[in-house]
Amino acid sequence: MADQKKLVEEITSMKEDFAQWYTDVVKKAELIDYASVKGCMVIKPAGYALWENIQKELDKRFKETGVENVYMPLFIPESLLQREKDHVEGFAPEVAWVTHGGLEPLTERLCVRPTSETLFCDFYKDEVHSYRDLPKLYNQWCSVVRWEKTTRPFLRSREFLWQEGHTVHATAEDAQERTIKMLNIYADFCEQVLAIPVIKGRKTDKEKFAGAEATYTIEALMHDGQALQSGTSHNFGDGFAKAFGIQYTDKDNTMKFCHQTSWGMSTRIIGGIIMVHGDDSGLKLPPRIAPVQAVVIPIQQKKEGVMDCAASLADRLKAAGVRAKLDGSDKSPGFKFAEQEMRGIPVRIEIGPKDMEAGKCVVVRRDNGEKIDVALDALEKKIPELLDAIQNNMFEMALKHREEHTYKATEYAEFCDIIENRPGFVKAMWCGDRACEDKIKDDTRATSRCMPFEQEQLSDKCICCGKPANKMVYWGRAY
Amino acid sequence: MADQKKLVEEITSMKEDFAQWYTDVVKKAELIDYASVKGCMVIKPAGYALWENIQKELDKRFKETGVENVYMPLFIPESLLQREKDHVEGFAPEVAWVTHGGLEPLTERLCVRPTSETLFCDFYKDEVHSYRDLPKLYNQWCSVVRWEKTTRPFLRSREFLWQEGHTVHATAEDAQERTIKMLNIYADFCEQVLAIPVIKGRKTDKEKFAGAEATYTIEALMHDGQALQSGTSHNFGDGFAKAFGIQYTDKDNTMKFCHQTSWGMSTRIIGGIIMVHGDDSGLKLPPRIAPVQAVVIPIQQKKEGVMDCAASLADRLKAAGVRAKLDGSDKSPGFKFAEQEMRGIPVRIEIGPKDMEAGKCVVVRRDNGEKIDVALDALEKKIPELLDAIQNNMFEMALKHREEHTYKATEYAEFCDIIENRPGFVKAMWCGDRACEDKIKDDTRATSRCMPFEQEQLSDKCICCGKPANKMVYWGRAY
Repeated sequence: MADQKKLVEEITSMKEDFAQWYTDVVKKAELIDYASVKGCMVIKPAGYALWENIQKELDKRFKETGVENVYMPLFIPESLLQREKDHVEGFAPEVAWVTHGGLEPLTERLCVRPTSETLFCDFYKDEVHSYRDLPKLYNQWCSVVRWEKTTRPFLRSREFLWQEGHTVHATAEDAQERTIKMLNIYADFCEQVLAIPVIKGRKTDKEKFAGAEATYTIEALMHDGQALQSGTSHNFGDGFAKAFGIQYTDKDNTMKFCHQTSWGMSTRIIGGIIMVHGDDSGLKLPPRIAPVQAVVIPIQQKKEGVMDCAASLADRLKAAGVRAKLDGSDKSPGFKFAEQEMRGIPVRIEIGPKDMEAGKCVVVRRDNGEKIDVALDALEKKIPELLDAIQNNMFEMALKHREEHTYKATEYAEFCDIIENRPGFVKAMWCGDRACEDKIKDDTRATSRCMPFEQEQLSDKCICCGKPANKMVYWGRAY
Repeated sequence: MADQKKLVEEITSMKEDFAQWYTDVVKKAELIDYASVKGCMVIKPAGYALWENIQKELDKRFKETGVENVYMPLFIPESLLQREKDHVEGFAPEVAWVTHGGLEPLTERLCVRPTSETLFCDFYKDEVHSYRDLPKLYNQWCSVVRWEKTTRPFLRSREFLWQEGHTVHATAEDAQERTIKMLNIYADFCEQVLAIPVIKGRKTDKEKFAGAEATYTIEALMHDGQALQSGTSHNFGDGFAKAFGIQYTDKDNTMKFCHQTSWGMSTRIIGGIIMVHGDDSGLKLPPRIAPVQAVVIPIQQKKEGVMDCAASLADRLKAAGVRAKLDGSDKSPGFKFAEQEMRGIPVRIEIGPKDMEAGKCVVVRRDNGEKIDVALDALEKKIPELLDAIQNNMFEMALKHREEHTYKATEYAEFCDIIENRPGFVKAMWCGDRACEDKIKDDTRATSRCMPFEQEQLSDKCICCGKPANKMVYWGRAY
């Protein structure tokens, strides 16, 4: 077991230094590597396979609601970016600018898309004419660039992968309905597939998207008690439509402005998976998103029949729909165990001569370390059941953690004390004034995460200024 | 049928002006739209759905050979691009340069990747240490930018989508085997899925990829007799490995340089699908790649039961694994027919009151216009059979066209005459000198497309200079 120890000892413990633990896991589980351009990352096979599964699951859910995929250009002319005032103010300070094409200087600078509202609007203005053309429900999978000063793998990088949906509707009601529909898809995906419980709610004006009328968010709590904004859905009202001239002729033959939405989820959520589920042995992947769900590890693999038996177990599991893999490499079993734990593979199946004699194998759960003897002929039945049990347990553990780290405050001193000493979400009333949000951030480094759909009247006064308040807000420090 | 005529009349006939026909089809079949940045395109739902199917088919074939997907950054520092001499000479004149990040000028210019050899090499140099780490078989799906002066949708645009595979091997033999394996995957994909027959061969040194030791290609013939390079696979030997220092410790404990390959196919192939199969009524999609394989069009759809019957046919086909769609819109049947033809949907199924009474529907093939009565209860059996028949017929028609437009020449005057007056491939012998290739291009605008694997000894002297020659080359004008 010397190997195993070594591999695990190479990662910092969560308690000692959570940030370092995160970086260690990202590297040791071979999810990413740093690239030659500062702040950019190479997503390695184990990381990209996770993203492919996320794409597959989300894309299916989008298409079930009528969404179609398209692809917009990478570049936005400066004049186009400037068309919507709030939007350009929000993004211009952090975009990368292309000034030369080949050997020639460009007549107009192009920015590398930080998000594509302006491109979609420019496209829709010529595409939409009549109420018959509506709605348009388009989405794209692409990379975007934001020139961040400080970066962290997955959580904040200068380039990241995401999907951005952009829809156009005839009425404000239709746009609002779509905004919430997509938020619900994100929430269900996080809870059911990623085993990450989320709070659904609306962002305050201070925290909303540049150019949006309203931004809705799902917020998750990481293991260290910090929040992660995990997906957002924006209702633009007719603001962009007015800035870009996106109009349609309605049934009554009058010209009307369209209403729009946009919504996105990015590779950032992989950071969420790591920080919600991981532990001091490494990554812990929920079975429904894990690229490999079960790894079969032969014990005394050079003994006659062992390797064949292990291979046949992996094949049987694959035939039963389990994403199974055989680790037949010449590393020691101890090293393979540590690797399975580091990579977060939900179950490992150990099979050696003694097990074969007894007609069973040993199955070890990654979520709780439990070892279970499983009869070989029950494998196809037991492993899928176990994967479901692991999925559910991981969600329950994450939910329990969030509940244990969600606090209520009705006095400001208490509020500040919790933020400082008990990392987590703090529920508190807010009067609606930006000044209070600013003061809270200055005093505590906590931000308003969202005004949750499920409101509680904790008191009748603002946690900060004491004026009348009827909005309960989730507050917390965030990534 | 007035609608139908109108929609079709809007496209130029192939004979009149092939280039304009192509542009008309691309627009009218709603594959792309032009974007606000010159030379960039918006890929619309019908075009992107094609690309998604191409991705799905290729990705499956790649993974079956052990390839894993990754994601490399969008940006390449100028110094990194310059590391391999031939490579930078080939690409530097046509890259887009980022000079500012946010409000700050960058200390080093970054180019937007025109291809990612340099990034993969920079990554592999730290990733590969021992023979145990080899091979690495990575691929990425992404967009690349090349600042072309003249552009055409799909065929040549400043940004396009593609996949680029980059592999590292221990030996020259392994690299060569992988190079040919991937070329064969591209060829099989083109022939079996896209119904496009291809010539497999090797590029001359003049036409090979910047930095490659050898480039292999598949070449297809378009309807107008021009060639389209449809996919390439490069063997880099150890050239990049030496430039970037990618070395491994072999079993005998000596340090050796790796051998590498790269291979790519892009959205350009969609241009090939259009130009191989299309006709004066629009696009013609091979069933295996068509996003919609069958559209059900109700006739007299307001009559009782017609719409329900049409919907049930579409549902039955979907259940039988056919990508079927109901067109229940309030457009006229004639308009719907023209639209099905323009969009290249392989079959349409017409169902009206009289058909229902007779217990049948009318099935119209897009490939040859044939109308067939199909008994309603035989639909699940007949339509998949018909789709296979269409797929095969489309391949046979394309092959016949290519064979009828492939010529042999043994005299230079004859060669020039064919190139000028009978567009197609010309097979002719070549001595191997760059000077002859240059002269042929100057005289005829034809380039060497490839030295095919299947060689014929047409004569013993070079078509151009008359010196001894033992290489048969496919020549042609190309996109």
